[in-house]
Amino acid sequence: MDESPKFAVIGGGSWATAIAKMLCVNVDEIAWYMRNTYAIEHIKLQKHNPNYLSSVEFDTRKLLLTNDINEAVSYADYVIFAIPSAFLSDELSKLTVSLEGKTVFSAIKGIVPETSLIVGEHFHEMYNVPYDDIGVITGPCHAEEVALERLSYLTIACRDQKKASLMAKNLDSYYIKAKTSDDIVGTEYAAMLKNIYAIAAGIAHGLGYGDNFLALLMSNAIREMKKFIRKVHKMKRNINNSAYLGDLLVTGYSIFSRNRMFGNMIGKGYTVKSAMMEMSMVAEGYYATKSAWQLNKEYNAKTPIIDAVYSILYEGKDAKQVFKKLTDKLD
Amino acid sequence: MDESPKFAVIGGGSWATAIAKMLCVNVDEIAWYMRNTYAIEHIKLQKHNPNYLSSVEFDTRKLLLTNDINEAVSYADYVIFAIPSAFLSDELSKLTVSLEGKTVFSAIKGIVPETSLIVGEHFHEMYNVPYDDIGVITGPCHAEEVALERLSYLTIACRDQKKASLMAKNLDSYYIKAKTSDDIVGTEYAAMLKNIYAIAAGIAHGLGYGDNFLALLMSNAIREMKKFIRKVHKMKRNINNSAYLGDLLVTGYSIFSRNRMFGNMIGKGYTVKSAMMEMSMVAEGYYATKSAWQLNKEYNAKTPIIDAVYSILYEGKDAKQVFKKLTDKLD
Repeated sequence: MDESPKFAVIGGGSWATAIAKMLCVNVDEIAWYMRNTYAIEHIKLQKHNPNYLSSVEFDTRKLLLTNDINEAVSYADYVIFAIPSAFLSDELSKLTVSLEGKTVFSAIKGIVPETSLIVGEHFHEMYNVPYDDIGVITGPCHAEEVALERLSYLTIACRDQKKASLMAKNLDSYYIKAKTSDDIVGTEYAAMLKNIYAIAAGIAHGLGYGDNFLALLMSNAIREMKKFIRKVHKMKRNINNSAYLGDLLVTGYSIFSRNRMFGNMIGKGYTVKSAMMEMSMVAEGYYATKSAWQLNKEYNAKTPIIDAVYSILYEGKDAKQVFKKLTDKLD
Repeated sequence: MDESPKFAVIGGGSWATAIAKMLCVNVDEIAWYMRNTYAIEHIKLQKHNPNYLSSVEFDTRKLLLTNDINEAVSYADYVIFAIPSAFLSDELSKLTVSLEGKTVFSAIKGIVPETSLIVGEHFHEMYNVPYDDIGVITGPCHAEEVALERLSYLTIACRDQKKASLMAKNLDSYYIKAKTSDDIVGTEYAAMLKNIYAIAAGIAHGLGYGDNFLALLMSNAIREMKKFIRKVHKMKRNINNSAYLGDLLVTGYSIFSRNRMFGNMIGKGYTVKSAMMEMSMVAEGYYATKSAWQLNKEYNAKTPIIDAVYSILYEGKDAKQVFKKLTDKLD
């Protein structure tokens, strides 16, 4: 199997499209599942995803496109999930084939709202996938820059280092450098938490705080993230490695980040509901905030930034007042 | 003396102007030295520095403006130097009055080219100022945002914590939060090194690398900075505190940073000379690169980013080639 493993990409969004593109550099064939049958037909005919990263041209001979998730999962040894965490439960409920013997990689940066679990935990708890068969694909990596083939680095985490290496090898290319890690819990929590901090960065921007404060906020965010992740899963990790700090920065500093955009609207005075409607989607960090806050009741890490975002998003507190208080807690 | 200490600001640039503005919130009178007599007359008449942060209005009754550095130094208990490091030796050569009994604060982010010393060391070695009388004022803080009164945080470092607190108290205001530290060596080296990393960020941008790579570069830069500073002066410090990581980020991510701008031109193919001429000034990081590289021959820290910038700026190596090699060393 390790000689020529088969891959399936689950999802039709920008990150799924980027991963499909990366794999196609190395692999002769992948299965690619997406719900949208129009998009599938468009890709087959036009070689481009009509909705996301539409500049990317695919060699369609390499693509087994399907809108049946069971077909994609059956096909593959490695199944890469790259759909918003809010839709994961729904999609998985369609599964009739078993995940046994398959390696599941999460490229989802969030928490499963129904179970308040990160994706790896969700597969482990709900589908009995052993941790050795669970992996994480993390950045710092905007899908848009993958489309442009701008040099990007990935971290591929899996307890089974052979599987991490195999996935890394198949994503690696002239514009992708993929390294491996064994910290599946930490990298996945980092990917989830950074979206909360991106919302915080957006709120700050929306409220009129400037670049000096943003740098201060990010410097506090990485310290807060370190404390939080340490409580969840203590192990030797350098929080300044690219999967943690790099991923935080690429999101927190990106004006294209959906989470930051969402926060920005909140900072400018939109209600949570109207910001969501305006974006016609839910930012991952919205769910992450609630889960992180709830989890932290148990862990009791000092997380003033998460607490501030939570009180704005879920307790209806005034963003301006909350941030004024927050600025006294940061240093 | 501690009841109503007297302050002098040395320098007429944007950071000096920002510091003068901050002090004037708390202090009834400051001495302010600048070379440019036209600027002095302009401030006296128009209440604005004509050349830097010209939107800032001063209560001129509070300003003892002078173009005689000796007058300013004589006046003050606390002398804050905020001139480019390249001009420090020249300015100090004009000193006829003694620095004895005075506390010298450096708001200079660089190395003194003539001695290859950071500013605190320069005062200690060349002027016998005891380390207890030497302090550092550091960001993350763009002067431009001080002008706009956007909330900014400063770190005031001095071995004598009373002096650090006094300076912090006098800079603190409704838009400035100043905290103290005892790490004068680390904060000053961080302020110096970050300019090298800002040049690297500029070169990367000029060469066409994107945001994914920039986040990766910053994540490597802070790890490199930690190693370097640890070799220079080992003590317990959290490199993710705002004086280190925050200061790195505010500079590395700023398109207004002169160091980043300089790097950007190099990345776009300008020679070092023509980039300097185009900017009509020398970026602090240019000297910092040479000094850090030379220092590191002794310390032997692993500093691939500094080495890369050095080889481009001082050995005439091709930026594109050097960065291609550098990307293999980062992770």
